[in-house]
Amino acid sequence: MRVLIAGIDGYLGWTLAQHLGVRGHEVSGIDNFSRRAWVAEMDSHTAIPIENMATRLNALNEIHGVEVDFHVGDLTSYMFVKRTIERTKPDCIVHFGEQPSAPFSMKSPWHSTFTHNNNLNGTLNLLYAMHEHAPKTHLLKLGTMGEYGTPNIDIPEGFFEIEYRGRKDTLPFPRQAGSWYHQTKVHDTNNIMFACKNWGLNSTDIMQGVVYGTQIDTMTDPRLRTRFDFDEAFGTAINRFCTQAVIGHPLTPYGSGDMKRGFIALRDSMQCLELAINNPPQEGEYRVFNQFDEVYSIYQLAEQVKDAGEKKGLAVEINNIDNPRTEADKHYYNPDSVKLRELGFMPTKQLHEELSIMLDDLLTHRQRIEEKKRVILPKIRWKE
Amino acid sequence: MRVLIAGIDGYLGWTLAQHLGVRGHEVSGIDNFSRRAWVAEMDSHTAIPIENMATRLNALNEIHGVEVDFHVGDLTSYMFVKRTIERTKPDCIVHFGEQPSAPFSMKSPWHSTFTHNNNLNGTLNLLYAMHEHAPKTHLLKLGTMGEYGTPNIDIPEGFFEIEYRGRKDTLPFPRQAGSWYHQTKVHDTNNIMFACKNWGLNSTDIMQGVVYGTQIDTMTDPRLRTRFDFDEAFGTAINRFCTQAVIGHPLTPYGSGDMKRGFIALRDSMQCLELAINNPPQEGEYRVFNQFDEVYSIYQLAEQVKDAGEKKGLAVEINNIDNPRTEADKHYYNPDSVKLRELGFMPTKQLHEELSIMLDDLLTHRQRIEEKKRVILPKIRWKE
Repeated sequence: MRVLIAGIDGYLGWTLAQHLGVRGHEVSGIDNFSRRAWVAEMDSHTAIPIENMATRLNALNEIHGVEVDFHVGDLTSYMFVKRTIERTKPDCIVHFGEQPSAPFSMKSPWHSTFTHNNNLNGTLNLLYAMHEHAPKTHLLKLGTMGEYGTPNIDIPEGFFEIEYRGRKDTLPFPRQAGSWYHQTKVHDTNNIMFACKNWGLNSTDIMQGVVYGTQIDTMTDPRLRTRFDFDEAFGTAINRFCTQAVIGHPLTPYGSGDMKRGFIALRDSMQCLELAINNPPQEGEYRVFNQFDEVYSIYQLAEQVKDAGEKKGLAVEINNIDNPRTEADKHYYNPDSVKLRELGFMPTKQLHEELSIMLDDLLTHRQRIEEKKRVILPKIRWKE
Repeated sequence: MRVLIAGIDGYLGWTLAQHLGVRGHEVSGIDNFSRRAWVAEMDSHTAIPIENMATRLNALNEIHGVEVDFHVGDLTSYMFVKRTIERTKPDCIVHFGEQPSAPFSMKSPWHSTFTHNNNLNGTLNLLYAMHEHAPKTHLLKLGTMGEYGTPNIDIPEGFFEIEYRGRKDTLPFPRQAGSWYHQTKVHDTNNIMFACKNWGLNSTDIMQGVVYGTQIDTMTDPRLRTRFDFDEAFGTAINRFCTQAVIGHPLTPYGSGDMKRGFIALRDSMQCLELAINNPPQEGEYRVFNQFDEVYSIYQLAEQVKDAGEKKGLAVEINNIDNPRTEADKHYYNPDSVKLRELGFMPTKQLHEELSIMLDDLLTHRQRIEEKKRVILPKIRWKE
């Protein structure tokens, strides 16, 4: 398969490039290095050092014999998107090329509109370019489980059949996202659904849980490592907890920590994405996969990190802090995740195993975390 | 009440300014004259001549003693929005300031992203400025019945209580919009709902049906008239049919014409908006009103125009043409519209009466329609 990865310089993009490349897919990629700039804006850096793109690509070729056709550019330029699709002729476009941080989107009016323009225009340009130049190409779009919010009923995979006043229909499941970033993913979902219906495009919209992990098997050289962010905007709770454990800072769940989320290991996320690529939708089909493995509360997550840290001789405390976000902490949470398992998804790593590997990796780079430890605690508040 | 009208130079904005002004509200307004530019881009003009803003404002003052505080500017500039809200201190902001045409949004990738940026950023800026400088102000936002699409169940007003797998919740009603323009209204709806929940703002989101009519009682001078578009992008089906009847061209319903829509007279739309302004939501409340009076199919609409035209001695034929849009033509359609009636809404004009007035008005300007008659038939296609 020819796979074009938008956002190939990011945490998931760079990992997927290797994962697909060593499995014989022809990989091309797009990035404008925005993630590096946004993390720099947060006055932070990746805990695990990464190389520039030229060095990354050379290493991938040298070590695994994988050649990636890389295109620098911005998805918000239609001419760039169109030209790159014409040149790379992908069977599948994996779209990671968005601003992925909820706190970053909540920083200011500028950050909110920037996130909207960046994320929506990029996706719209991909849809138009596919319609005009690659109508059979499969768009594999990364959304988030956060699109659904926390309804008081089960969460199906994208659609549900309901009865209302004696009549039935199958409808998109209502979305109740909790930040501007999450809203942009909902808007994308609506736009992609419309493009598939109107133009007969085909797409898999992945509602992904929180991805954790520092490694996959191909990362046998330091030049092949992927980024690991721990600042309040680009670091997930799990990343922040791991770095806090490493530098001896108490883990800081927000609020009660009782909010539940779906989680998946980086390796298993790669497995899922490859399954979706290898099993594309029908022409004109828009489908939604909920992509996660286990559900934990944020407090349970902290306890698992504490446990993993203590096994390595670290002294780890948990110290809940005020929640800077607006979110329900006591809530029902029972999302489906069946479709990927039907395609063959078999989780290979569970949280406690992966946490041990992550902590080992991060302990090697304790100094880099110490240097930037002021970026971990939240300053961006949902109500300010 | 102090009411700030965004989009005060438009069809509804200019009419509402008069309607509220003569009823003693303090009216201020914002516009950047985009609508005039977009209609010019379509190589068209309003069938009923309108004046420039300075002349309009002078006439409104001279004839009705109404002074409007007008601010030229673009809602996509946060500084402009913030400054104007600080200066005008509105109790209510009526937000008409968006690109309102489905075909215009479907013209090209540029028109799609432009409509997204223009509509979403404007609304985001209003929400941020309200949050920071006017948190009690009521945002009266114009959405469209088109947000809902045509589900096979009744359409409630924004939310519905459902049972799913034995559990109950009240959720936003799923939206299935059929153009990029309609999608931007859905995105706005999601963003406003989030802003009310997160920041405690209050808003009425109006899902409005198609508005028709050329007059309200205050338009006693030619300088007070509001625009009437008939090109394929900015003219509604009803406007296009009326102009076709006037110039002796067959009325051209798209496809079978069996698609049903909700309609409301311009006078009654003003009545509804004033009711919403005078009965604001609670602090933190986000509510949805479905604002229409009667439901007709597009073919029934054509028949009514034919009938009204024939009563004036016009020879009117109906000649269905290929549908340039992607839309269901045979569908269930049973939307609620209860909340405005509960506030006191009493429809005053029905379609056949208003059509007679519209045709009289348009017959006076037959030459202006003849001049631009090439803009009526559709060239923008949903699938190209």
